[in-house]
Amino acid sequence: MTEPSSPTDDSSTPSDPTRRTPPAVAVVDAQSPGNVGTIARAMKNFGFEDLLLIDPPELDPEGEAYGFAGHAREDVLPNATEITFDELVSNYHTIGCTAVTNEDDRSHVRFPFSTPADLADRLPTVEAPTALVFGRERVGLTNEELAEIDEICSIPADEEYPVLNLGQAATVTLYELRTLTLAGDETQLPDLERVRAPEETVDRLYDQWGDLLEEINHPEEKREKTMRMLRRIYGRADLTAREANTLLGLLRRATERPER
Amino acid sequence: MTEPSSPTDDSSTPSDPTRRTPPAVAVVDAQSPGNVGTIARAMKNFGFEDLLLIDPPELDPEGEAYGFAGHAREDVLPNATEITFDELVSNYHTIGCTAVTNEDDRSHVRFPFSTPADLADRLPTVEAPTALVFGRERVGLTNEELAEIDEICSIPADEEYPVLNLGQAATVTLYELRTLTLAGDETQLPDLERVRAPEETVDRLYDQWGDLLEEINHPEEKREKTMRMLRRIYGRADLTAREANTLLGLLRRATERPER
Repeated sequence: MTEPSSPTDDSSTPSDPTRRTPPAVAVVDAQSPGNVGTIARAMKNFGFEDLLLIDPPELDPEGEAYGFAGHAREDVLPNATEITFDELVSNYHTIGCTAVTNEDDRSHVRFPFSTPADLADRLPTVEAPTALVFGRERVGLTNEELAEIDEICSIPADEEYPVLNLGQAATVTLYELRTLTLAGDETQLPDLERVRAPEETVDRLYDQWGDLLEEINHPEEKREKTMRMLRRIYGRADLTAREANTLLGLLRRATERPER
Repeated sequence: MTEPSSPTDDSSTPSDPTRRTPPAVAVVDAQSPGNVGTIARAMKNFGFEDLLLIDPPELDPEGEAYGFAGHAREDVLPNATEITFDELVSNYHTIGCTAVTNEDDRSHVRFPFSTPADLADRLPTVEAPTALVFGRERVGLTNEELAEIDEICSIPADEEYPVLNLGQAATVTLYELRTLTLAGDETQLPDLERVRAPEETVDRLYDQWGDLLEEINHPEEKREKTMRMLRRIYGRADLTAREANTLLGLLRRATERPER
């Protein structure tokens, strides 16, 4: 682990200047090294870098934390900073994550709250150093800790069992906040718009279907309805250019039916 | 584990008829019982019930699967159904989850894909039995398996390390698909709209601020700008009725300043 450093320290600037500075992730008093590793892995998956540990368990390089961390074992986990809870709340705008909220504004300890999706919308406008704070297994963050924290975040889940495992809660939260760290072209997924069939090609496909319906003597009065069904099918399927062209070729051959 | 049953079997109808039938969750050839437990827990957190296991590891009731399952150890996990991959693909509309997609439509094995958020939008219109399929640790679903699967789902993640751990991938996917299983009033979160301060109360707060600015001789020419700033602050804060009323009382007392 590295020494504590002020979050405004220049050294904490991410190496790639085109990326926005993402929130830090703070884990308070985790008992299981495996959960710390799981959180580090989710951070790496969704572009977060700065892991803050408050009263962490021992993180043996041969143990579960590193075993669960995937590639985060190379940077996020060894670069984690151990700080106190007081340092955390005095240096960061803190967002405490909890499964259990208060019901209304008669208590402010766990109310009002944002969902991770709300945070993803709102946080891009906030410039100050921000930390997402996750509590210990079983009891989470205590009311005393939450009272010192700036705002509350809660993941919507089944009212019959809303308590996520620590590592799973952090994974869902970081997934939702990936828009703070990853621009659209920084995910592994290719841009589907680029390959969707041009409307012109899809129109040729419908024309070809029209020819085929005629060729097979599909009843005149049913053609309009059939064409509408075909439009609905292909419309839902978001054909790629290659798919549309392949279908067009097949239909053309079906229409022309060369003599065998 | 229970005996295999057809997904159209009446016995698979959820006990609460007001809930829609959620997709089943299939796990193919998982190596680690802990991951099966993690997936069962996420299912329970987000309202999914039907766990299908293909070539599962041994799930010892004293072991990691039950240890990681939380309350899902009481139902989702013991009620899991062991089936073959062939039974899976012949009885369900299958959605295979993979971190690695093809780049474009030159190959259809892993392309085109939907994100979990896309699926959440689209699946409510689909009535047929549907299964989300997760592959083994490290290699996921093989190309041979994916070729038999109806469609592909991929979680957007950092292009530098898009591979989520099996349990974490399932957790994120089920989180996104919770809208298929949980109506808005079935999460643990209270409805914030119900407690947001009525506009009328917030207007009284601004009027009181106006009185206070006058009382403290805030320069006339600055008042409009200051009022705008106050509106922006409270506007962003989504005050609850109780917060607005408390502030109103404080400001009233600050304005009236009874002689001490």
